Amino acid sequence: MVSRILEANDRIAFENRKKFNGAGVYVINLMSAPGAGKTTLIEQTIKSLHKNLRIGVIEGDIAGTDDAQRIESLGIPVIQINTGSACHLDANMVNDVIDDLPLKDLDLLVVENVGNLVCPAEFKIGENMKVMILSVAEGDDKPLKYPLMFQESSALILNKIDLLPYIDADIKKIKQDSLSLNPSLHIFEVSCKTGEGLSQWTEWLQSLVHQ
Amino acid sequence: MVSRILEANDRIAFENRKKFNGAGVYVINLMSAPGAGKTTLIEQTIKSLHKNLRIGVIEGDIAGTDDAQRIESLGIPVIQINTGSACHLDANMVNDVIDDLPLKDLDLLVVENVGNLVCPAEFKIGENMKVMILSVAEGDDKPLKYPLMFQESSALILNKIDLLPYIDADIKKIKQDSLSLNPSLHIFEVSCKTGEGLSQWTEWLQSLVHQ
Repeated sequence: MVSRILEANDRIAFENRKKFNGAGVYVINLMSAPGAGKTTLIEQTIKSLHKNLRIGVIEGDIAGTDDAQRIESLGIPVIQINTGSACHLDANMVNDVIDDLPLKDLDLLVVENVGNLVCPAEFKIGENMKVMILSVAEGDDKPLKYPLMFQESSALILNKIDLLPYIDADIKKIKQDSLSLNPSLHIFEVSCKTGEGLSQWTEWLQSLVHQ
Repeated sequence: MVSRILEANDRIAFENRKKFNGAGVYVINLMSAPGAGKTTLIEQTIKSLHKNLRIGVIEGDIAGTDDAQRIESLGIPVIQINTGSACHLDANMVNDVIDDLPLKDLDLLVVENVGNLVCPAEFKIGENMKVMILSVAEGDDKPLKYPLMFQESSALILNKIDLLPYIDADIKKIKQDSLSLNPSLHIFEVSCKTGEGLSQWTEWLQSLVHQ
């Protein structure tokens, strides 16, 4: 049953991808555990890149519109998807809202997935790449405990590095274990709070969108 | 389909509960996002209560046996369940391993669920109560974004309070929003790292097991 669900999802994801490609929009599927800093990273990325790129956002949440309001206040087109009890976005949910976005006026669409380190990695939504965030406050054992997301992601953003002096996480171990799962993973060490390390991320992202 | 899955799950959970009751074991279903501190709380709870209670543990993880090894090194009987791609424990997975535990020799069984703030709250496993941990480093917006787990839990453990000086989370808001979702929630503020606040939790837990 699960494999049939994923096959059906892949077909719809492919349709989404065709629409995104046709409109010339580069799409990121942004994933992490709850509270790793997805919305804050999106805010920082918008502030850094909005002069160079036209950016839109889809916000996936179980409940509530807090994150969408934060993005909207930056003057960016945003669509809220409330998944109810579903712990991830799927291609169909994204398909349902595609036409509500001004795709032709966008260069970059960031889709913020539901906070969950497991299922979002299994469901394509039509993205060009998956990006994951790990808060270093979650600990250095996460790559080996939640391997699929590390394997599926093109980039790993290690956030909250400003907290490193106050926690026991070994950032070297996180990087080693992540690269053992996915040797081509691009790793960025950032603090969305202080801004440290963010320019490497935004410059890399901009170079991909402009390709 | 989902409601039929949950109904079937509830039937097996009821069978599990009968077995646990018959053996006189009090069962906690411990849930949180990844990296909130479930295993560390279990370690601290064992260290504090092992002289008064006979404790066993079931470890639920997508992959790996790190947590089970941590518990085993304390001399506690522990069973590892690897869920593969499943983002939560269900009653059937627990049913499969019940007979591997020395139930008659236990007073308290702690079941550590997969790190996920969403689906674990939907699946009963035969527990007496659900307990959730929220790391304050995850931010103060979590109760309203992931309401079900706060509604289903009997206790909320706010962990990593030693980090409060370095983060922006408003612990008052977390408590207010949590209680608005679940007015009978017992809230404990702890640091599993420094030990602060843990005795209130362990004393309360011990009083429930001895009832």
